[in-house]
Amino acid sequence: MVTEIATIRFTDERVELAHGAGGKASRRLIEGLLLPHLSNAILDELGDAAHLEVHGAKLAMTADSFVVKPLAFPGGSIGELAVNGTINDLAVSGAKPLALVMTLILEAGLSTSVLEREIAAIADAARRAGVLIIGGDTKVVEHGKADGMYITTAGIGTADSRVHLSPTSVRDGDKVLLSGPVGDHGITVLLARGEIDLEADLRSDTRSVWPLVNALIDVAASGVRWMRDPTRGGVATALNELARAAKVAIALDEESVPVRAAVRGACEILGLDPLHIACEGQFIAVVAPERAQVALEALRRASGGEGATIIGEVRESPAGLVIARSAYGGSRVVDMLVGDPLPRIC
Amino acid sequence: MVTEIATIRFTDERVELAHGAGGKASRRLIEGLLLPHLSNAILDELGDAAHLEVHGAKLAMTADSFVVKPLAFPGGSIGELAVNGTINDLAVSGAKPLALVMTLILEAGLSTSVLEREIAAIADAARRAGVLIIGGDTKVVEHGKADGMYITTAGIGTADSRVHLSPTSVRDGDKVLLSGPVGDHGITVLLARGEIDLEADLRSDTRSVWPLVNALIDVAASGVRWMRDPTRGGVATALNELARAAKVAIALDEESVPVRAAVRGACEILGLDPLHIACEGQFIAVVAPERAQVALEALRRASGGEGATIIGEVRESPAGLVIARSAYGGSRVVDMLVGDPLPRIC
Repeated sequence: MVTEIATIRFTDERVELAHGAGGKASRRLIEGLLLPHLSNAILDELGDAAHLEVHGAKLAMTADSFVVKPLAFPGGSIGELAVNGTINDLAVSGAKPLALVMTLILEAGLSTSVLEREIAAIADAARRAGVLIIGGDTKVVEHGKADGMYITTAGIGTADSRVHLSPTSVRDGDKVLLSGPVGDHGITVLLARGEIDLEADLRSDTRSVWPLVNALIDVAASGVRWMRDPTRGGVATALNELARAAKVAIALDEESVPVRAAVRGACEILGLDPLHIACEGQFIAVVAPERAQVALEALRRASGGEGATIIGEVRESPAGLVIARSAYGGSRVVDMLVGDPLPRIC
Repeated sequence: MVTEIATIRFTDERVELAHGAGGKASRRLIEGLLLPHLSNAILDELGDAAHLEVHGAKLAMTADSFVVKPLAFPGGSIGELAVNGTINDLAVSGAKPLALVMTLILEAGLSTSVLEREIAAIADAARRAGVLIIGGDTKVVEHGKADGMYITTAGIGTADSRVHLSPTSVRDGDKVLLSGPVGDHGITVLLARGEIDLEADLRSDTRSVWPLVNALIDVAASGVRWMRDPTRGGVATALNELARAAKVAIALDEESVPVRAAVRGACEILGLDPLHIACEGQFIAVVAPERAQVALEALRRASGGEGATIIGEVRESPAGLVIARSAYGGSRVVDMLVGDPLPRIC
């Protein structure tokens, strides 16, 4: 992506919420302000995790901050999200998660019971995912200088030698697989804030996707070309980033993208596209056409992968765009997320 | 330290600033609340960095959050502090720093010029230290939900096979070396806040200590038993942690601890002990007596190590305590930091 850096400028005078939303504004901040200073071959990949070789060991490393509001919501909480989010960044980069370090920024006045609940959630999520929390740091800021607690987790994993994931591996005709329904996390958090008047039986999908990723790699091996977990900015943003980086088009069969009724309903009320809503326990995989069916079946056989589906395919043109075909035969360009309709979703 | 966990209970109802100060309250939070949930063999070491072996590579990993206020101060700023602080945790654990990942939590409304200044400071500090920033994440929270910016950095390094650092390696008669004057960072930040009316020509000592640590290991090798960078809680807290973990006494020659006049003056006004004030570019090393003199000379020859000195030695008893001898022949027990006289110093 290095060649593109010079073309993006960050001209905003102040930081705004949208710069943290994972969409276009985030991209401008990263490529227009951060990369010009920090650029190096590993960082410039802008992968979910950085891959590096140390004394012969092929490692992956990643870091994520979590500022979700409220701290707890149906199906999860900030602590579980922090563990799973970092594990998932490693997993979709093609690395087996191994260990995490974790830092807490706590607001003075936070009740110990809330803190202990989150520490227990972190411990439980780590145990379920088979990773160790091996270090960390705790800072406390004055009341009013944080919002309860913020968590940053950094993770290390070992690169899986069966795959070599990269946008440059993606080819015309490759299939786009999705592990399950989109938008559950984002809409659950939104509803938990009580900002819209809608009752829905919805839970965050937060979970480690490593078992599903592992099942996929088991059967498709190097046929898996690229993966990403569609968190902030949703499926639309993840696929747009792929389309740009790989200089291909993504032809999306919009009807085949699984969306729960409650998510679709909330999106209609809010004027949002479910393709822009964050997931925290799903992933997209681009798979070579000859391995796509066996990959799909392997995902569906795995626990929690029953909702997996093929949602589209890679085309040569129009390069850089995501095009959704509707059931009526029409088509539309699906853009990256613009603005930040759902701030602090993770 | 595992055996002690059960003896410490966290009974405070709410989180307070002191829990982030690095002293007794921090220890209660970590050992009384975090470890009971997260305990594992690596974490329980409570080292500056966690050491683990991955596919034959001996690695060290650490994470630190930075919430310093103000963001910039004479001699440094939050970005430089974040890079150096994480590098130093790796260095004093006996690991060569290699790469960092970095997350930003930004307050909406932060001016782009401040952000860019800090990104440039991060890039510059990383370049000087010879480490790469290989990944990261950016979140934005609403105005009033952070204080400009918070930075978390996680670092990875390779364990230096020449040393095996541990409190359990420390022996009666070992010498305690200090790389330079104490308290410059803490008092500089305090003065930068304008909370006390004192003019002083003082700068933060923030820097990577790896070159000094490397010079020390070069000459003393396995004669280096233990190291720590005395950040929050200062030299007194670091040595108390050693005394407890190693079940030894530390006999401190208080007169030999280098303290600049401005730091001593500010401490006198504030009723603080310079031994409790944070450094960000110094380290303590416990060295076998037969290597102590050559180690000291190597430090003094190295650039930035001119102020190194031997400040005390390890004794068998009274185990668990740090005892300072004064010039007048008296002695006093030097405790860990209690409370938080200087919040948000890093």
